[in-house]
Parts: sequence; structure tokens; C-alpha cells
Amino acid sequence: MTARTRVKQALSEGRPGETLLLKGWARTVRTGKGVTFISLNDGSTLAGIQVVAEPELANYAEVAALGTGSALTVTGVLQESPAAGQELELKALSVEVVGTADQEYPMQKKRHSFEYLRTIAHMRVRSNTFGAVFRVRSALAQEVHRFFAERGFLYVHTPIITANDCEGAGELFRVTTLDLNNPPRVEGEIDFAQDFFAKATGLTVSGQLEGELFAQAFSDIYTFGPTFRAENSNTARHAAEFWMIEPEMAFADLSDDADLAEAFLKRLCRFALDNCDDDMRFFNAQIDKGLIERIEGVAQASFARMDYGEAIERLKKAPVSFQFPVEWGLDLQSEHERYLTEQVVGGPVFIMNYPKDIKAFYMRLNDDGRTVAAMDLLVPKVGEIIGGSQREERLEPLIGRMMEVGIEPESLSWYLDTRRWGSTPHAGFGLGFERLIMYLTGMENIRDVIPFPRTPRHAEF
Amino acid sequence: MTARTRVKQALSEGRPGETLLLKGWARTVRTGKGVTFISLNDGSTLAGIQVVAEPELANYAEVAALGTGSALTVTGVLQESPAAGQELELKALSVEVVGTADQEYPMQKKRHSFEYLRTIAHMRVRSNTFGAVFRVRSALAQEVHRFFAERGFLYVHTPIITANDCEGAGELFRVTTLDLNNPPRVEGEIDFAQDFFAKATGLTVSGQLEGELFAQAFSDIYTFGPTFRAENSNTARHAAEFWMIEPEMAFADLSDDADLAEAFLKRLCRFALDNCDDDMRFFNAQIDKGLIERIEGVAQASFARMDYGEAIERLKKAPVSFQFPVEWGLDLQSEHERYLTEQVVGGPVFIMNYPKDIKAFYMRLNDDGRTVAAMDLLVPKVGEIIGGSQREERLEPLIGRMMEVGIEPESLSWYLDTRRWGSTPHAGFGLGFERLIMYLTGMENIRDVIPFPRTPRHAEF
Repeated sequence: MTARTRVKQALSEGRPGETLLLKGWARTVRTGKGVTFISLNDGSTLAGIQVVAEPELANYAEVAALGTGSALTVTGVLQESPAAGQELELKALSVEVVGTADQEYPMQKKRHSFEYLRTIAHMRVRSNTFGAVFRVRSALAQEVHRFFAERGFLYVHTPIITANDCEGAGELFRVTTLDLNNPPRVEGEIDFAQDFFAKATGLTVSGQLEGELFAQAFSDIYTFGPTFRAENSNTARHAAEFWMIEPEMAFADLSDDADLAEAFLKRLCRFALDNCDDDMRFFNAQIDKGLIERIEGVAQASFARMDYGEAIERLKKAPVSFQFPVEWGLDLQSEHERYLTEQVVGGPVFIMNYPKDIKAFYMRLNDDGRTVAAMDLLVPKVGEIIGGSQREERLEPLIGRMMEVGIEPESLSWYLDTRRWGSTPHAGFGLGFERLIMYLTGMENIRDVIPFPRTPRHAEF
Repeated sequence: MTARTRVKQALSEGRPGETLLLKGWARTVRTGKGVTFISLNDGSTLAGIQVVAEPELANYAEVAALGTGSALTVTGVLQESPAAGQELELKALSVEVVGTADQEYPMQKKRHSFEYLRTIAHMRVRSNTFGAVFRVRSALAQEVHRFFAERGFLYVHTPIITANDCEGAGELFRVTTLDLNNPPRVEGEIDFAQDFFAKATGLTVSGQLEGELFAQAFSDIYTFGPTFRAENSNTARHAAEFWMIEPEMAFADLSDDADLAEAFLKRLCRFALDNCDDDMRFFNAQIDKGLIERIEGVAQASFARMDYGEAIERLKKAPVSFQFPVEWGLDLQSEHERYLTEQVVGGPVFIMNYPKDIKAFYMRLNDDGRTVAAMDLLVPKVGEIIGGSQREERLEPLIGRMMEVGIEPESLSWYLDTRRWGSTPHAGFGLGFERLIMYLTGMENIRDVIPFPRTPRHAEF
């Protein structure tokens, strides 16, 4: 018996005359005079292979009446195709109907809106667009691991359930096994001592703090796992559950951090262009006309670096009027970020050394006493895509900053321990994986690059 | 300026006479007559490199007084070592103290119990044992991705927060943003319509059901992500949060499933032996004397396959008395599993086709009407390590089983949809990643193979 061949291999490596066994789903079925054409897709690649079925087949009547979405096992001979746009087709020797599909099948040929397709997220994966999105997502996730593995970075699974409420990045989801109808109380308050973990816990917003602990033993580490935000924001760029990549390096400063971020983003851009070329051409044609040129530009660029102070000066001199004010000490808004990367630099740029008051407590205080060693990487069309910093490795300044922002040092004593013994300058960054996939595919809604998105009022499937 | 070299490269590729820049932490500091020996470890490998510091150093007094745990930057010349057990050492040209460590440093040379080290999980990673554990964990996680990537499996991020309460694998953690002190109510009950997701949600116990949806579009997929059990069991093998690997294949039956599981486990065993050899030798010497021989045995074995019915017969005939009863229809206990793999087969064995009443609703009913196409892979010393099944792809039998076990079909209508249109025979399995790491390292407590374990009453760090 012949082993199964994937459609991708059949189309790219097949030779006319070969007999192949293919398995997949009918994306379209067209019956003409004495012949039925089936576009067979098995998810291995964007394109379907054209299966040519003729009346000689014992079950030709069944085949000619097949519905879109049917699952098929086809044995046939590869031959050169007379049709435009394809070099090879498969002349069927046998077509076995594995699973039928009737007229109720929701993914008929006609175009559906992305909004509608979100309501059938279990079926949308059978479309060209979402097939391409999730192939690119998978390929990039695997490439993230290869990138770090090659450089000797240790992959760490930081905890999802956490009792830290001071990571400082928005509201937490509570995790509990208490009976919500009748929770135990002490002096009127919920008695979390009786909860599963004997304290109040929630879902992590970042693995950074735990990642830092590992960097102080293994030098270079990264996390790649789910993180959560209980923010009630219904935008195209926010989801309650998303995956984040967070590398952390001991013996590294902000410049090393920017070097890593630049190498990382360029590698992922290059990989998408070279290894997901069919899907990228599809996005370029159907979703975002300038996509390939833009990603190619990032892959080849030398990323600029600019001080926050200079960025503010440039924005003040800009011959455009911004909606939000520009002033030293204020955070940059998306309009400012895009102006800097698109108009001032004309390519990717790191903005570095932000005012300490608009950044997190763990970032390293610069010698000027008013800025911290933070960086944001801005890219054309979206603005910020990576945020990172050198961390405060000195015990006393770190405790001072915690107290300034109202974090009880005792609550993070384990974090402070790394500054007590064998502390090193260290730095890292975070990349929201969905933001990256949006950037690389041109898809404009985060709901369309996550298999089953979790957003306010939505946790289906 | 010389670029930093990792200790692993220095020891394996360095040549006497080379000048190197190393960065790391002092694991031991011994000062003798006119010379100080520092064992420098940077996490890249188990071994430290011996740094030889002599009084010619400008800061020799500081170096001679260094505490265990200090962070150092050392420039020096590689030379052949006269000491036993090491070929190369580094004669220091300069030693910069990056971060000091005093006598309070918790990871002094003396041995600590694993129990104690769990209370300082942020520091235990600086020990030989936990350095080795987390290097192996990382290396294996990266290899899991390579294994599936090479075979064209699509990596899927299935959701962590879920509204499904019927996955059927133990108690769920509740996820909520409601004010627990004063939750909204309707007719006395909690009004989850006002919760973040407008319904009651919890943490996933498995990505399988969502993985099946993707397999019906991409043929071969896998998940690798965190899963949760709110079981109040304080055993050495249970954690509330752990990582699971779940492949799923369309157009595949139970035999294909066993083929994949066998190839997968053997590949991971081979990889650990070949690529984590220093760490594996350490485990073999310090943790579990027979480890390497046992893992080598699995890597080279041809896995046996045995029907559940035959397994019951073999157990009944066994010349040993088991604690738990053996009878067709009862589940196998750990003692039975170990007897089968260790005594009956003498190697890994798949037990296949279990009684339907002790297995999940989604497993495919066999033609005998009383067993399902389920499999458990048993290996010597631990028993079950992988569990899988062919899934019920026929709509009516699946609905029937759901109703038998009390699951409302409407609540999983999206899952049933994959059986309505283009259904295929499909199969998959689950491997608890921590169980695998325990198996490959000989570590006996799951708390010692997870960076920051979550168990009843414990969610520190």
C-alpha cells in the first residue's frame, strides 16, 4: 500500500506519472460534461490540488454529487495540468468518500466576513485566510524556539497562576475554588486562607520576574507562554488571553537588549518571507497590498536608536498637529510612534531612556536620575511592537523605587534576593506573539490571529 | 574586546593558550597558599570551569575573599589542568567582581534537602541538581517542537480560559472578575452574565477538543501548553498546573496513534541521552542508578501491544497478590501497570481497547459494543506515561455516548459539527510533560521538575 502524500509535497516535489495516495477535504467540486474537478486541500499548504474524476470510477455518481467540505481519500496519477495556474493535477484512480458534507456546511464557496467567521471559529480554519494565518502562526512559533535554542537560551515555563498582584500591567483575573455562592469569611472579608492555594491568586500578566530568577542561574533564558489581562477593552488589538515571548539575559545592558531584539525580529521576518512564501503572497494579494515589501524592508533594515529626549524634540518640531500633547515626561501615543518610525526615521527605531515616572518600577535608573534604561521598538504601520528594559540590579535603588510606587518590598523578597547575592546587570524584552502575527500577515484584528479568542463577553469553544 | 565565551564551549572546544572572557557565578572558592581556585558556572553546562587566581592580580585580596555565589567577569588564558577530573582550567588575567555574595547566601556548598530547596525555588536553580533538571526540561521542550515540525504537524495554541465544564478530567479552577465580596445575583444565584466573559469560566484541563477542530483542517496538529487540575491531592505526582503535549491526527486510527507515540517517546529518550549527556550522567550517578540503562532500553525497544482483555487474563494468572482487584471492567492500577510492563513484557507496552465504561465519552466504540479504541502506554518503573485514543467520528454514536454520561449535546454543538461535515477517523494522545521529565531524570517529585510548582496551599514566587 502506498503511504499518504501531503498535498504540499505532491505539488512541489511530484513528477508526472507518479501514483499517489492523498487525503483531505474538498474545497470546491465542479462537475462538467463527463468530468468532475475537485480541489482537494489537506491543510499542509494554501493551494488545493486539482483532482480529475471521470465516469470510469465505479462510484462516479457519488463523486459527481459530492458536497463542499467532504473528506476524501484519493488514489491517482499525477499529470501535467492543462488548466491555468497549476502545473500538476491528479487523475483519480479511486475516490473514497470518508465523510460527507451537505448543503448546510457553513463554509461554502461564497465569501464570509471575518466578523461572521469568528462566530464559527471551529470552521473558519477550513478557509484560505485562516488556513494561512494558523500555518504562519505555527511556523513562527516553531522558529522562535529554534532562534533561542541556537543561541543557547534556556526555555522556562513560568507559572500561570500567581499570587503576585504587583506586576503592574492591568487588572488580574481571579483564580479560585471557593464556593462563590457562599464563600468562607473572616470578619466579613473573603477568607482566602481557605482557598486552594491558601491565598488570593490570579492569572499572570507576565513571566518576567520569574524569568529574571532563571537568568541569574542560566545566563540567557526565554519564556513563551500565555498571559492575561482582565481589561474590559473591546479594541482590535486587545485580547484577554494572549501568548508572550520574554527573553532575559544576565550580564547584559540596554544596548545588548536592543541587539537581541533587532536580530530576533529580523530573523522572524526573514523566516516568514522565505518559508511561508505561499501564505505570504496570499496575504500580500488579499489582505494588505504592501505587506511583503514592508516585511522585506524590516528584514533588511539597520534599526535606528534614538533617545526619548530627542524623540520629543523631533515631535515638537514636526509640521503636523497631533491629537495628544507632546511634552517631556508624557508617554508617546500611537500617532507619535508612527510619525517617528514612518516619517522621521523611515524604518524601525528603538526609542530609549524614557522618564522613570511613566515606566515600571523594575527598570534601571540612569545616572541622570530622571530616566530609566527602557526601550520600545517602533516599526512602520503599527508603532510599538517590542518593549524592554535593563533591570535595576542594585538593591537599594530597587527598594527605593518599589516604595515610591507603593509596592511593599517584603511582598517581593524573593525577587530582591537576586539583588542580594551575585547580582548582575541584566536586561530583557517582551513581544506579544499575536501582535507579531498581525504584523507579519496584515490581519487587522487580534481575534483573527488567535485560534479561539477570549475577549469581553466571549469565551466560546 | 573579546566576546563572551560560555563555559560549555570553553570546556568542550577551547584550546590551551587561548585568551577567553567568561562570565558567571562562583560555585566554590578555595584559597590556598598564594593561589585561589574558583569554580565558575554560567548555567550553560553542569560543570564549572576552574579559574586559577594568583597574587599578581591587582585585586587579589578581594578575589581571595570572594563568597560563594558572587557574580564575576573573568579574562584569562586556557591551560591544561594538573587537577584530576578536568582537562582545562583558566589562569586569570583579571577578575572583576560584578555582584558580591556574603555568608548569608542560601546556596552554600553544603547539601540541602529537596524539601528545603522548594522553599527557595528562586535560588535552587543555582544548584547542580536543579541546573541539570531545568536544562533537560528546556532541551526536551525544544526537541518536542522539532519532532513535530519535521513531520509537518501544526502547533496550535488552544485556549487556557474555557467555558466548557465537560472535558471530564477533574475539578476546574474558576476564573472570574466578579467582586467575590459582593457578587451580582439573580434569584439568589451568582449572575455570571455579569462576569467578564458573560458566563462561568474556568481553566482548561486539556486542549484536545479544540485540537480536534484544527486536525479537521490541517490533518496533523499538536498542542503544548499549560493545563490545570483543582484536585486537592498532595502526592509526588500531582500538580495543579502542568504542561501537556497533545497531538491529534486526522485520517488516523488507534494503530497510527500508537506508532506516533512510540516514535515520539523513543526520539525524546534518544535525544536526552545524546544531547544532555553531562546532565544525564549526573542523574545516573546522584539520583537514580539505573537511569541511563533504562532510558537506553526504551530508546531501543520495539514497543509491545496487548489488548486490555489479554492484560486482565495475564494479571489474573500472575503469581503475585495485588492490593487492588483484577476483573474485566475495572481500571488498571499502578501496581497492575508496572507488573505488565516490568514482569510480563519486560519493556514498554501499549494496552489497547479498554471497556467503554471506564473511559471518556469521545473515544471510538469498537465493533464489540463494549470496548473503545483507547490506549495507554506503560513503561518500566512508572507505569502509564501516555494515554490516547481514536476519537468517535460518527455523529450518532457520539451523541449517544454523551447522553449516556450526562453531557448535553447542545453544549458541545461546535464539537459535534466536525462530525456533521467532512468527518474523518482521527486519533491523538496526551503526554504530561512533567511526567516525562521525571521519567528522563529520575527525579521523584513533580515539584522538583517544575520551575515554581503550584500545589494545594502553594503558589509562591
